[in-house]
Amino acid sequence: MMPLPGRWLTSALMRYNGSSLLIDCGEGTQIAIKEAGLSVNPIDTICFTHYHADHISGLPGLLLDMANSDRTEPVTMIGPRGLKRVVSALRVIAPELPYEIEYRELEERTQAIDMHGYSLHAFKVNHNVTCYGYSLSIKRAGKFDLKAAEGLGLPVRYWGMLQKGKTVEYEGSTFTPDMVMGEERKGLKVTYCTDSRPTRGIVEAAEASDLFICEGMYGDPEKADDAKRKKHMTFYEAAKLARDAGVKELWLTHYSPSLVAPKRYLKAARGIFPKTYCGKDGRRVELLFEED
Amino acid sequence: MMPLPGRWLTSALMRYNGSSLLIDCGEGTQIAIKEAGLSVNPIDTICFTHYHADHISGLPGLLLDMANSDRTEPVTMIGPRGLKRVVSALRVIAPELPYEIEYRELEERTQAIDMHGYSLHAFKVNHNVTCYGYSLSIKRAGKFDLKAAEGLGLPVRYWGMLQKGKTVEYEGSTFTPDMVMGEERKGLKVTYCTDSRPTRGIVEAAEASDLFICEGMYGDPEKADDAKRKKHMTFYEAAKLARDAGVKELWLTHYSPSLVAPKRYLKAARGIFPKTYCGKDGRRVELLFEED
Repeated sequence: MMPLPGRWLTSALMRYNGSSLLIDCGEGTQIAIKEAGLSVNPIDTICFTHYHADHISGLPGLLLDMANSDRTEPVTMIGPRGLKRVVSALRVIAPELPYEIEYRELEERTQAIDMHGYSLHAFKVNHNVTCYGYSLSIKRAGKFDLKAAEGLGLPVRYWGMLQKGKTVEYEGSTFTPDMVMGEERKGLKVTYCTDSRPTRGIVEAAEASDLFICEGMYGDPEKADDAKRKKHMTFYEAAKLARDAGVKELWLTHYSPSLVAPKRYLKAARGIFPKTYCGKDGRRVELLFEED
Repeated sequence: MMPLPGRWLTSALMRYNGSSLLIDCGEGTQIAIKEAGLSVNPIDTICFTHYHADHISGLPGLLLDMANSDRTEPVTMIGPRGLKRVVSALRVIAPELPYEIEYRELEERTQAIDMHGYSLHAFKVNHNVTCYGYSLSIKRAGKFDLKAAEGLGLPVRYWGMLQKGKTVEYEGSTFTPDMVMGEERKGLKVTYCTDSRPTRGIVEAAEASDLFICEGMYGDPEKADDAKRKKHMTFYEAAKLARDAGVKELWLTHYSPSLVAPKRYLKAARGIFPKTYCGKDGRRVELLFEED
């Protein structure tokens, strides 16, 4: 929540199929992306949880950096009401960009947006200003049953349509995808949530995530009241959310500057949810579909 | 000019007598100040050369950090016309601060401002937008001549007034500072200039500086035309300014991202001005008055 040497602001970059989505963009995010050896050019979507400076102050620099990278394709920005007003004000120092910005202001308590082959689910959380968390889900179709397809009497050239979920009419018969496709397989899901008090909505949104990135502002149990008052969470509150949501792994982030050694409190958090890890600059993971 | 890992944006912090002056505040400046082990709290003056993002994008974060440091004393901002408009727009994400901001917009080609025991001299340079350089000078009074004071017949309690440059009337006689004070001694002077083409005004402003911090956008002599077109300077143009201004030392800064190894061109620049050095993150020096 305050950029420190070796501990920059909270931000997540998710890459899928040539598309990059960034959630939050505090000061220094463009440098962190370069340090990770990644390019800003493919970022087509930027989501904001809210507009406190530590979540958006790096935006003008990022936008200019994307311009320098010769991006010309449009960029979609998603965030709570006020998005266009805030971004337009910050663009006083980045007025000319070679790409369009499309603004999508969130109005509902939960809102789903399908794009770039994944589904983005925004959910309102509980901070001292309007704030949203985000879940990103990639669906995975069922397995194609070759034997069943062969038994249909449908020429091979139509099989691809069934695989893509389309119904085929052929010589007076109707062929539906379920005739050749197995049950939808487990996809991938990542949920990101900061800044908020724990809520039921977070548990619902994070349900069964492969990765749950959640604020852990304080490790010291004595800071529980500070967390309540400032509308943040302790490590233990985040761990309970992870446990209740049945996620695979929890990464804590958005530490208070008073939290000098986050790992000191990891053991206690793991008492609640064993697969808890401390987020740190550049932490990354590659999530893969399960092997069949 | 573009923040890279290990090479952040150009900014200078000058400290004198408990007062801190910052020139330019690109993204990451607050982190650089912390990395240097310094505090943002005593920053009472922030000068901007111009409002390109790499010179001001770190301002909202810095202002909030100063607020977190419990600063309540006012902050003076100095820069070309548009200062208040640009800063006010950026403050969309830093609306509430516990200190006042006083804006001083530069209108003249050169402008002198005395404050905090030093003299700040702003001078217009030649970029593709209105841009200023800054010289900071600390004067040093002459030496107090004890023998001469004793010979005046003036009680000791009046000597301090003469030392402070005041005239004293005592028993019908007039005593002036020059009676006890030697010639003004050499003070200290630091000049900061980026972004600009070389100009006569820079040489005049930088004259006899102890330290001249100047942009050196390009080291490769083949980039001389790029420098002209983009209104920047090569190492060699900066070295010529340093030589012509008779400065003690030149630090080059504001490198192009294409300039991967600035030191490669240092020898050639030193052929023009021997005391040329490459600026780098955290570079610092303590300037002291000469020994008598």
